[in-house]
Amino acid sequence: MARGRVSRLSVRDVRFPTSLGGHGSDAMHTDPDYSAAYVVIETDAEDGLKGYGITFTLGKGTEVVVCAVNALAHHVLNKDLRDIVGDFRGFYRQLTSDGQLRWIGPEKGVVHLATAAVLNAVWDLWAKQEGKVTHLTATPDPRTLVSCIDFRYITDVLTEEDAYEILQKGQIGKKEREEHMLTGGYPAYTTSCAWLGYSDDTLKQVPAEAGPGLNRRTHVFHRFKVKVGADVQDDVRRCRLIRDMIGPEKTLMMDANQRWDVPEAVEWMSKLAEFKPLWIEEPTSPDDILGHAAISKALVPLGIGVATGEQCHNRVIFKQLLQANALQFLQIDSCRLGSVNENLSVLLMAKKFGIPVCPHAGGVGLCELVQHLIIFDYISVSASLDNRMCEYVDHLHEHFKYPVRIQEASYMPPMDAGYSTEMKEESVKKHQYPDGEVWKKLLAAQKN
Amino acid sequence: MARGRVSRLSVRDVRFPTSLGGHGSDAMHTDPDYSAAYVVIETDAEDGLKGYGITFTLGKGTEVVVCAVNALAHHVLNKDLRDIVGDFRGFYRQLTSDGQLRWIGPEKGVVHLATAAVLNAVWDLWAKQEGKVTHLTATPDPRTLVSCIDFRYITDVLTEEDAYEILQKGQIGKKEREEHMLTGGYPAYTTSCAWLGYSDDTLKQVPAEAGPGLNRRTHVFHRFKVKVGADVQDDVRRCRLIRDMIGPEKTLMMDANQRWDVPEAVEWMSKLAEFKPLWIEEPTSPDDILGHAAISKALVPLGIGVATGEQCHNRVIFKQLLQANALQFLQIDSCRLGSVNENLSVLLMAKKFGIPVCPHAGGVGLCELVQHLIIFDYISVSASLDNRMCEYVDHLHEHFKYPVRIQEASYMPPMDAGYSTEMKEESVKKHQYPDGEVWKKLLAAQKN
Repeated sequence: MARGRVSRLSVRDVRFPTSLGGHGSDAMHTDPDYSAAYVVIETDAEDGLKGYGITFTLGKGTEVVVCAVNALAHHVLNKDLRDIVGDFRGFYRQLTSDGQLRWIGPEKGVVHLATAAVLNAVWDLWAKQEGKVTHLTATPDPRTLVSCIDFRYITDVLTEEDAYEILQKGQIGKKEREEHMLTGGYPAYTTSCAWLGYSDDTLKQVPAEAGPGLNRRTHVFHRFKVKVGADVQDDVRRCRLIRDMIGPEKTLMMDANQRWDVPEAVEWMSKLAEFKPLWIEEPTSPDDILGHAAISKALVPLGIGVATGEQCHNRVIFKQLLQANALQFLQIDSCRLGSVNENLSVLLMAKKFGIPVCPHAGGVGLCELVQHLIIFDYISVSASLDNRMCEYVDHLHEHFKYPVRIQEASYMPPMDAGYSTEMKEESVKKHQYPDGEVWKKLLAAQKN
Repeated sequence: MARGRVSRLSVRDVRFPTSLGGHGSDAMHTDPDYSAAYVVIETDAEDGLKGYGITFTLGKGTEVVVCAVNALAHHVLNKDLRDIVGDFRGFYRQLTSDGQLRWIGPEKGVVHLATAAVLNAVWDLWAKQEGKVTHLTATPDPRTLVSCIDFRYITDVLTEEDAYEILQKGQIGKKEREEHMLTGGYPAYTTSCAWLGYSDDTLKQVPAEAGPGLNRRTHVFHRFKVKVGADVQDDVRRCRLIRDMIGPEKTLMMDANQRWDVPEAVEWMSKLAEFKPLWIEEPTSPDDILGHAAISKALVPLGIGVATGEQCHNRVIFKQLLQANALQFLQIDSCRLGSVNENLSVLLMAKKFGIPVCPHAGGVGLCELVQHLIIFDYISVSASLDNRMCEYVDHLHEHFKYPVRIQEASYMPPMDAGYSTEMKEESVKKHQYPDGEVWKKLLAAQKN
């Protein structure tokens, strides 16, 4: 049972200097420092349990999200956790529809990232108090899940009754699917092999200890993603190199990270079609539903699907992407949307439209969080692995107390109580910006 | 000529306690304190001129926008103003596509509001240096204007050539339209008469000294907007009262401030159709392009148009609203979009689609800024006043150094050099949050 009055909410700015190695670089984000606004919630309950929540950022601007978390804190402090999860829909609405704060959103950008950090901490704490892994073994009953969702603005495609019905149907065969996950895990694909900042040599032979080597990966992974979009000749060369290395059978995806306009996306992809990509990800602005629909339609004859979602800012955007046949693969993100609450509504809409969910992950902690959502999706919503896989990037897991476990290119279900959001305190301290040891050194070096 | 290196950028959190009087209240924003992140830019030029920029907020969260302005400041500091306006498209792109910061947007919410504040200050300074009112008498030539616009993500409906062509055509008859503005001004409508927080008695007889009285207004204004959406019976009563007072001939608009889902909007408006509203504004989520299209289609038989825009976060959303026939009236906002640069692209797209622009205003300073845009639209883009009008709310103008001038329900063109963004220093000092005199008193009173 949920328990305790929230007595403290703290938030810290934690940054990893990933830009130094070109890790994570793409056509629009050339020098990301993978970072997080890291929230800790404490209660006055005697159990001493804490809830940990993160939202992922790219370095600069993390302090803005931290500021937004502080602006939301008064909605959480002194609340009883029973009241929060007992009316989770109401609490979600309170955070996202604050009469003054909503003007600087609503439900998008900085304030929504902050909302995610806070709510991720609540889900972590709730699960820990119940002694359960958030979703896999502890999936609350359909009524409870539905009561967490704010259906505002989506009832034209998904009502509360629709949602309940989908979740009820999801109970059939659930035991078998749980068993399947425990033994085989959820299929993953890798992006670490081909960041845009990597040279051809790095692509071919990144040393094993660095993690992201394609040579190492081919023995394990069957699905690969390559960053494209900065220069078409470069892309042709890189894609040929990678297709040659992985062979014709394995799956290749491409990711343009919003680099193109609509006509440009179609033209560019026609030049990369020979490398048989399963999808082109983020071909244009994440806000351009009709643009994605146009691209999607134009790429059908080339056998290329459209994927997007990591920067789609709320359920209203996903609703429309589904309504407009604008994507063939839907990529939720555990920190961009309003935590589990809003992601639930998107999983259910995707089910209704028959579109596979293939989450965005990587960054800091995104793999740790999203594995809960996608394994839940398989067990209780989609009941299928067809055309489904979850992104995996093997950076920064060492900073988490309960890191993901990958076996044979699959996410193995988490076993510890909570939402896997807790970072090692030592890592947090070292990487706090700008006062942690790592940054003190780097900033001093920059000055010299 | 633009001149000087930016030597200082300061930003302050300025709040007016408007919630105390129910001013500005609507179905979603029940207790707004009209506020602004207020930016001042200084250069090392000998003229001593400063650029003032604001972005409008509702109280809480202003500190988050202030934090975002500070995160953007390094893009502005030490830049030469000549380089900024000489490659204004490039500078816009630099602010909005920072490889790390764009993750917490991109071009939406907090970071985009902050971008607007910074760029509004640049436009103010640029105009002042040239000794000109920003747009009316000083409209730069079409080539210069086009060079300020970032066409990324909109070339499928508006290319640089399209834009240039529209502006070239806008030169024809420009002198006459300038003359027309100088004598007759730009038509305004009022919202002050019917905030949702006002009682029926207030609606009928707000004392003249408070400003927002409907009685006083009927002698002047011909167009009125009423807030709806909280309770349908209430709405019927209030709309009947107002329609009775203004008579059958004058124009009535309604504003739901995003309160409804799509089916609900259609149902609710069918109950208010008897009061003959010209438009229903923000019937649902500002992100819901397809929802607005559905509502728009359903309301055609009732003779009610759809208006939206004040919370549409960038040009990509406006592009799609136009593509999808989702609105009949397009409401730009001078602080939600990326300043003059992005608003230009929206004015041009609206022209291309033949949709009238009727800007959002009110708040703090929105009237002061948007008058420049809409008068420019008439003189150089739309060349028409058909179905066009600009919102006017008579609050808080006394805090501006160059307040709007309203005559016979029209905005009279601004005459002073600059973008009318400068506030009186005394007002800023008094209303700074939380240390200004006004807030010190209020916060102390709250404690007791």
